[in-house]
Amino acid sequence: MSSNASDHPSQALATFAAELTFERIPDHVLRRAEDLMLDWLGSVLAARSARPVQAIQRFAEMMGPAEGPSEVLISRRTTSPVFAALVNAAASHYVEQDDVHNGSVFHPAAVVFAPALATAQALGASGAQLLTAVVAGYEVGIRVGEFLGRSHYRTFHTTATAGTLAAAAAVGRLLELTPAQMLHAFGSAGTQSAGVWEFLRDAADSKQLHCAHAAASGLMSAYLAKDGFTGAQHVLEGAQGLGVGMSTDADPARLVDGLGTRWTLAETSFKYHASCRHTHPAADALLQVMRREQLQQGDIARVVTHVHQGAIDVLGRVVVPTTVHQGKFSMGTVLGLIAVHGRAGLTEFDRDYLAPEVAAFRDKVMMELDREVDTAYPARWIGKVSVTTTDGRTFSGRVDEPKGDPGNTLSRAEIEDKMKRLAAYGDAATPQEAQTLCDGIWSLAAAPRVGRLLA
Amino acid sequence: MSSNASDHPSQALATFAAELTFERIPDHVLRRAEDLMLDWLGSVLAARSARPVQAIQRFAEMMGPAEGPSEVLISRRTTSPVFAALVNAAASHYVEQDDVHNGSVFHPAAVVFAPALATAQALGASGAQLLTAVVAGYEVGIRVGEFLGRSHYRTFHTTATAGTLAAAAAVGRLLELTPAQMLHAFGSAGTQSAGVWEFLRDAADSKQLHCAHAAASGLMSAYLAKDGFTGAQHVLEGAQGLGVGMSTDADPARLVDGLGTRWTLAETSFKYHASCRHTHPAADALLQVMRREQLQQGDIARVVTHVHQGAIDVLGRVVVPTTVHQGKFSMGTVLGLIAVHGRAGLTEFDRDYLAPEVAAFRDKVMMELDREVDTAYPARWIGKVSVTTTDGRTFSGRVDEPKGDPGNTLSRAEIEDKMKRLAAYGDAATPQEAQTLCDGIWSLAAAPRVGRLLA
Repeated sequence: MSSNASDHPSQALATFAAELTFERIPDHVLRRAEDLMLDWLGSVLAARSARPVQAIQRFAEMMGPAEGPSEVLISRRTTSPVFAALVNAAASHYVEQDDVHNGSVFHPAAVVFAPALATAQALGASGAQLLTAVVAGYEVGIRVGEFLGRSHYRTFHTTATAGTLAAAAAVGRLLELTPAQMLHAFGSAGTQSAGVWEFLRDAADSKQLHCAHAAASGLMSAYLAKDGFTGAQHVLEGAQGLGVGMSTDADPARLVDGLGTRWTLAETSFKYHASCRHTHPAADALLQVMRREQLQQGDIARVVTHVHQGAIDVLGRVVVPTTVHQGKFSMGTVLGLIAVHGRAGLTEFDRDYLAPEVAAFRDKVMMELDREVDTAYPARWIGKVSVTTTDGRTFSGRVDEPKGDPGNTLSRAEIEDKMKRLAAYGDAATPQEAQTLCDGIWSLAAAPRVGRLLA
Repeated sequence: MSSNASDHPSQALATFAAELTFERIPDHVLRRAEDLMLDWLGSVLAARSARPVQAIQRFAEMMGPAEGPSEVLISRRTTSPVFAALVNAAASHYVEQDDVHNGSVFHPAAVVFAPALATAQALGASGAQLLTAVVAGYEVGIRVGEFLGRSHYRTFHTTATAGTLAAAAAVGRLLELTPAQMLHAFGSAGTQSAGVWEFLRDAADSKQLHCAHAAASGLMSAYLAKDGFTGAQHVLEGAQGLGVGMSTDADPARLVDGLGTRWTLAETSFKYHASCRHTHPAADALLQVMRREQLQQGDIARVVTHVHQGAIDVLGRVVVPTTVHQGKFSMGTVLGLIAVHGRAGLTEFDRDYLAPEVAAFRDKVMMELDREVDTAYPARWIGKVSVTTTDGRTFSGRVDEPKGDPGNTLSRAEIEDKMKRLAAYGDAATPQEAQTLCDGIWSLAAAPRVGRLLA
């Protein structure tokens, strides 16, 4: 670690973000950035008709210019960058299918892509410039999330708080901020960091607002810095900074952990099933058994899922779900959808979470605490199932990383498939448009100019 | 206290704000609201050319509509409510001449008037509706500041954090939110509460951003609530709310303290001198002696100011100021301006903080710790001076409340005079326009419609 990195870690991080070039980013990281962007587009499109997202869209239409250089993906209108960022970010997280970085419990796509895309469109930036900015946003946001730590996450929604800095880094890179300007942008973004979990108790709409706020505030911070507006030099690690104010275990060393060698973007997980993450390892293990043994749902008499205590704590409360949302927290329902349809996506949940054959399968599923699985958690999310057939055979299934995690990531075909399903779910793009989006993202690195995605 | 007030204080506060009517507000509170509004206008106009304010103005012009129903006072352009609120709020606090509520250490004008005015102009609201909304904003913001407490203020800038709720309350009242909608607006505003003191270390521009952010976020929260967007029901006092996340001595009882009988707006102080508040009591006491004894500056050989320890801590560092800002923290310089000019306003500081006669007077001033003054602080800011003349006489001066505090408030003539000086300082309005502004505010309660203030 350089002396700068230990003496002034937020400056080192800002300098890294400002000086990051396309050429310095490893190929696999760039390819993963493209994967994540296409995956993010699906999440945005799926939320097109969601009530809280539409409320934010209407606010943007009332307050913002009626046209501009940046695209609101769900309305197909254009406006200024800050409002496009606001609305697209609000849509990013709604269906809870966007990516997650496990270590920081931070959803980078939700706060990085919307402001980066809006700014790139406004500037006429190239695809390579956009991808570079996105990588800067991920690397900054994830490290800020890790810096803020577990104590922060108890009260604060890290995607909202670290999100302002992630957005500022991405937009700042597109604006070609100097390292000094980038640090000013961090100061302005950090002093707008906000978002508490209290809304969960009431199932209120704040999650959409959190993403929108982070994206818009971070974008504003970067634009202001470009214009000479100054910010705190140590907004993260200073004596009256975010670490002191919003955490009790903030660790400045995390801000610079492996800068330039460790690519946290590539550690980011895709969400594969549309259910609570605690159900994913067992769902994957069941799918493995059914495919390997060529079982149909009717062949199965009983499934025992061997799980960590956290899964029992979170999922144990739902026996018979009464809402789609509860269905996503019912291990039996999730495994029932997997057994019947081979997947548990948004469409399957909406349509079939109470379908007779799914409900019948649900009652065959139980959870048992497993010592090995529980010990490995949360560093590893191991999936183990024991499947007993109606004719008395028993099969074991095991996955060491749930589908979507970096060691078991999605193929491009799977990412395309997920995106197309999400776009269709939101009735937000025709199949042909969805295919055009895929092709556009896969060739983004070579695009001389980021144009409209859905013209 | 009603059961609602003790069980769910934020709901009681939201209900109060939503149901507040013009008729229920005592006359002296309405008159003081007018006083505060005129005082606020002076602060905004004085900041017209300030670099950080202009940066935020340029951002608004780049991102917002080029015209609209709401007035940007410093540019004389119009735009949508959120951008007018953003820019006018950014200007409010720059010259540090705006009002302050001592108990909550909260500057209400800076975050209430800008969003309220912008919304009132957009809705075609009456003057009475605007004043009612302003009172709602003050009563909410001050109580939220008191709720967050002293521990909060150590790291967080209360004007920024409580400011989002103050702005939401004012705008929400204009939008005629129901009590339930107002509580949703509080949830959205609270989960955008942000702003840390770290920028002070670098003299960065964040204070302007804090006011802008609070005003815009609060306004957005109220508009979203009107459109059905939901927020946390206990964002302040809940288990994962602001009190837990951003304070260690949050006291929910303060949220409802004297609701409807105690008018905290009337407890708000005007800033009379343009210097650090710790110099004000002595400045007032010196002015008292000089007027009473008809002394000129040349008659004075020595001034001993009898002060509290905090004044020595804050002011003791500056002996010979090298910047205007340092001059505002130099007791001798402040008293020198008072002695030479009879006032220590922005103009006097800019022009004469190092003028020979001011510097000569500066060296005649000393501070001494006074037990009575120190014991009374911070509940009371007593000013005591001993003035020795060149012909050997000694006079004592004493003020029990500094000029501008509720018990020693400014007359309307003094408020007009201060506003006109500030407008002239910012070169932002002609004397005739300034007079028109005064007349407009004094007759605001009867205005059927809040039009443009500077047409």
